[in-house]
Amino acid sequence: MPDSQFDVLGIGNAIVDVLARADEAFLAQHSLVKGTMRLIDEHQARQLYEEMQSGVESSGGSVANTMAGIAALGGRAAFIGRVRNDQLGDIFRHDITAIGVHFSTPAATSGPATAKCLILVTPDAERTMNTYLGASTALGPSDVDPDLVAASKITYLEGYLWDPEEAKKAFIQASGLAHRSGRKVALSLSDPFCVDRHRREFRELVAEEIDILLANEEEIKSLYEVEHFDEALQLVRGECELSVLTRSAAGSVIVNGEETHVINAAPVDEVLDATGAGDLFAAGFLHGYANDFDLVRAARLGARTAAEAISHFGARPETDLKAFIEHL
Amino acid sequence: MPDSQFDVLGIGNAIVDVLARADEAFLAQHSLVKGTMRLIDEHQARQLYEEMQSGVESSGGSVANTMAGIAALGGRAAFIGRVRNDQLGDIFRHDITAIGVHFSTPAATSGPATAKCLILVTPDAERTMNTYLGASTALGPSDVDPDLVAASKITYLEGYLWDPEEAKKAFIQASGLAHRSGRKVALSLSDPFCVDRHRREFRELVAEEIDILLANEEEIKSLYEVEHFDEALQLVRGECELSVLTRSAAGSVIVNGEETHVINAAPVDEVLDATGAGDLFAAGFLHGYANDFDLVRAARLGARTAAEAISHFGARPETDLKAFIEHL
Repeated sequence: MPDSQFDVLGIGNAIVDVLARADEAFLAQHSLVKGTMRLIDEHQARQLYEEMQSGVESSGGSVANTMAGIAALGGRAAFIGRVRNDQLGDIFRHDITAIGVHFSTPAATSGPATAKCLILVTPDAERTMNTYLGASTALGPSDVDPDLVAASKITYLEGYLWDPEEAKKAFIQASGLAHRSGRKVALSLSDPFCVDRHRREFRELVAEEIDILLANEEEIKSLYEVEHFDEALQLVRGECELSVLTRSAAGSVIVNGEETHVINAAPVDEVLDATGAGDLFAAGFLHGYANDFDLVRAARLGARTAAEAISHFGARPETDLKAFIEHL
Repeated sequence: MPDSQFDVLGIGNAIVDVLARADEAFLAQHSLVKGTMRLIDEHQARQLYEEMQSGVESSGGSVANTMAGIAALGGRAAFIGRVRNDQLGDIFRHDITAIGVHFSTPAATSGPATAKCLILVTPDAERTMNTYLGASTALGPSDVDPDLVAASKITYLEGYLWDPEEAKKAFIQASGLAHRSGRKVALSLSDPFCVDRHRREFRELVAEEIDILLANEEEIKSLYEVEHFDEALQLVRGECELSVLTRSAAGSVIVNGEETHVINAAPVDEVLDATGAGDLFAAGFLHGYANDFDLVRAARLGARTAAEAISHFGARPETDLKAFIEHL
């Protein structure tokens, strides 16, 4: 690979999370499917927020969380995404910058407010997400700095970018730029319903553009419309160079050409909140991969960082993740 | 007492907290005195925020936290305080309403932003607070609804109200109204530096207006400018009808005329963050007092709710406090 300035450049929705506890009855009453993400408009966001319990706000966004995790691991991470110049936008910018991620996308000065995700955490620690995309939809191809893409070993994109039309164009442009610079492109499938919304295009993308695919069990089954994980695993083998498939407590499976590696989940004292588990797994794996760890060691680091994420409330790392690398 | 609609009406600064971890070196570098609160202007707030680590936002404000605690205990609580009509103001209003506190003070539509408190939590779990008063300074006598004061068994005021000039007038007006309605007036001294700023007036207030004084060891020593807790205890006995003095891990002391009760602190598995400990002690005590618990039982409830507050990050209750009453 040519010299690089960053290990990973993430492009994604810039979102502030609002986490609150909710019971199963609340989910049922609002017809919410536990463990998934749905898109809501401003009116729905206001209504749901009014009915939610009191919450805690912190910066989020799937790929942004992953970049925060990489920076906390001591990696060199950059992020592209759009906030509005409002209070939540200031919070997002502060947090991602303070943790050491390069973030220079200017805030939108008009249009909708900074995106927020109303996250309901049920007593079983599962999170159900309701996203108002807001200013995230202002992300477009002109925000993709070609020098930044060329200077990053991996460009990491989230399937969620397929929801706002201009962000999807930014995605495609970034992927092309990365490949022309001899770099890798990684994709997270984001959510089974997101896959459902964009299945045909995602299938094409995985087969033709993506070097490293990150997906959980529900997402990869949704992508290939199969009932069993093992079928999905065999299908993705022929389509994508390298796939990293996570299965919650059942650990993860790495599919690399003919090779298959099965990695255990890391032990957790108490599962408190699943928010950010997949994002932080991606952080550990991509950090290891970019720094030439072998695949199993990279996945073990992912398992360890994911375990940290689920043992506290919120999606961003709370402890010094660098120590995890020493203890691998 | 005449019939009441509320157990406690709190009047205080409406603040959103930004909690972040910091080390001792960071405090030293910024000349901050651990465990205290200082007032900062908008410029200082921006500068400190830029240098802080990534944070978590949640609704705060000392008396507002106490009202949230009373509501979580099943008590009837109301709050008067000023936010701006901005994103942080919406968060404050949502949280205090969602937990069950009556809050109808309209948001300011111009002027400074909603108040925020930048709270640095050191590894020893102590919090150091930096408050930008913002829209809190818009609170004035016209915000004090006389019917609300007359309908509340106790009107609870924070010493911090003495900092914004108009809020102080609101304080004096509320206190007079409460007494004319045959109600009690309680005061928290808030912070030793706050006492330092307003000592002469606080001494007068305690002697002439306040029925129930809540203070911690540092605050009561600062009020009477004495070196030892016991001296302060004897001085306050002659001045105020009922004083509730907290001493962190050393428990609390109730001084009621000639009576003195010494109550142990409640056990805590792990002290994580002292933010809100005093506020939640006040919640337990005032809830018990308003519901005719004897003084020792009310203080025990305070100790228990304070223990809950310090065993998690943030100032508002995270568990069902009603169960604490059954276990008293």
